[in-house]
Amino acid sequence: MRYFIELSYNGTAFHGWQIQPNANSVQETIEKALSLLLRETIQIVGAGRTDTGVHAKFMIAHFDTDVTFSTDNLQYKLNSLLKAPIAIYSIYNVKEDAHARFSAEKRAYEYRVITRKNPFEINSAYLVKQLIDIDKMNRAAALLFNYKNFKCFSKSNTDVKTYNCDLFRAEWIQESEHLLVFHIAANRFLRNMVRAIVGTLLEVGIGKLEVEAIDRILKSENRSEAGYSVPAKGLYLTEVTYPENIFIDE
Amino acid sequence: MRYFIELSYNGTAFHGWQIQPNANSVQETIEKALSLLLRETIQIVGAGRTDTGVHAKFMIAHFDTDVTFSTDNLQYKLNSLLKAPIAIYSIYNVKEDAHARFSAEKRAYEYRVITRKNPFEINSAYLVKQLIDIDKMNRAAALLFNYKNFKCFSKSNTDVKTYNCDLFRAEWIQESEHLLVFHIAANRFLRNMVRAIVGTLLEVGIGKLEVEAIDRILKSENRSEAGYSVPAKGLYLTEVTYPENIFIDE
Repeated sequence: MRYFIELSYNGTAFHGWQIQPNANSVQETIEKALSLLLRETIQIVGAGRTDTGVHAKFMIAHFDTDVTFSTDNLQYKLNSLLKAPIAIYSIYNVKEDAHARFSAEKRAYEYRVITRKNPFEINSAYLVKQLIDIDKMNRAAALLFNYKNFKCFSKSNTDVKTYNCDLFRAEWIQESEHLLVFHIAANRFLRNMVRAIVGTLLEVGIGKLEVEAIDRILKSENRSEAGYSVPAKGLYLTEVTYPENIFIDE
Repeated sequence: MRYFIELSYNGTAFHGWQIQPNANSVQETIEKALSLLLRETIQIVGAGRTDTGVHAKFMIAHFDTDVTFSTDNLQYKLNSLLKAPIAIYSIYNVKEDAHARFSAEKRAYEYRVITRKNPFEINSAYLVKQLIDIDKMNRAAALLFNYKNFKCFSKSNTDVKTYNCDLFRAEWIQESEHLLVFHIAANRFLRNMVRAIVGTLLEVGIGKLEVEAIDRILKSENRSEAGYSVPAKGLYLTEVTYPENIFIDE
């Protein structure tokens, strides 16, 4: 039987999602707890692989097991067992071919920028001291919708078949006097893509780049034309969406 | 010359506001930085003394010096020097008899309660898993306005002249699905008072105490009649208010 786990985690405490030697990953932390509770070795597959320090307000992972258990009870026990900053919101049965990563149709991220030092946002937002023009950043963000190929925002050493992404949303919102949040959604994201887009848009926002530079950068398909990559700590995975047909009716 | 400092700090990193031997206090951290920048020994006096783990979204402290300096420049340098989770928002000249603690007319606190595990609120809110009836808590909070003597919510080993406080606000707000915030304001607070009030109101909220028990508790003037004291991590000083006549017109 295949199960989906809905969860969130504070990335500050982890060396990213993916298991790696001698490092504390979200995946390994959950696998260890699940294996202990189900008394068999469990492996989980996440909807994506967040980097060190990146957070998830919402993440999906799947696992397979033939052990029978109450999903509510397992969720409760998993939360009690996990002392780490991971919250398990729900566990439910899905169809056998449902895949946390490959079945996902849409992913959404937020990037939080603070414009004044905030002792409650040391590891949860990125501080920018320059004056930011949010209207300019939104005009630049709107230009992104004219493109499919986002190679210019991708880490150069990645091995992907295509650099094409379908963008659904790219918008800055002024959430409060000293907090700007960038919302972006697409069918898929390339490695480091959100952080490179945010860095580029911020360069527009502080006047280092013109709004129209976005067109030149995207046409170049060259990472070195785009802006800098902003720190991981401001980035949050917030949504992963699947087609209705992978869920099992109750 | 006397100066006021407006600041905020994340209490997780500190053993409270007040200087004490072999412990990291907010007061000492700021005094060291100020003394370094002004090249003389500076002592600061805070509007109140928050306990270990208690946060301040807004705090006022005063200090005296005859050194001349630009307040904006000092604020900037202080923020750069302070690597700790303290933010200095403003520094300004006040009248000689203005006192951060004794001149304050009103103080306000918030207490944050989450009702679901949240990896982003490990040190910034208190998790209550039981079902909470917010209407009952607000009916109980309204009864507090019938009293002046809050001895029943005070730490027993305190040495104060009076247990009387003038309450201005005591109200629970459902800020989002899994977040309740208690807002309380008064001219003064006794030691541990907010945390004891919140613990008592939560006992009403989960059905352990009746709404009317509040009357019995307040009349008893006995700490052991009231509810438990909730953890420091959910508590925030949010406002300190002074009379207009202590400020110097620009």
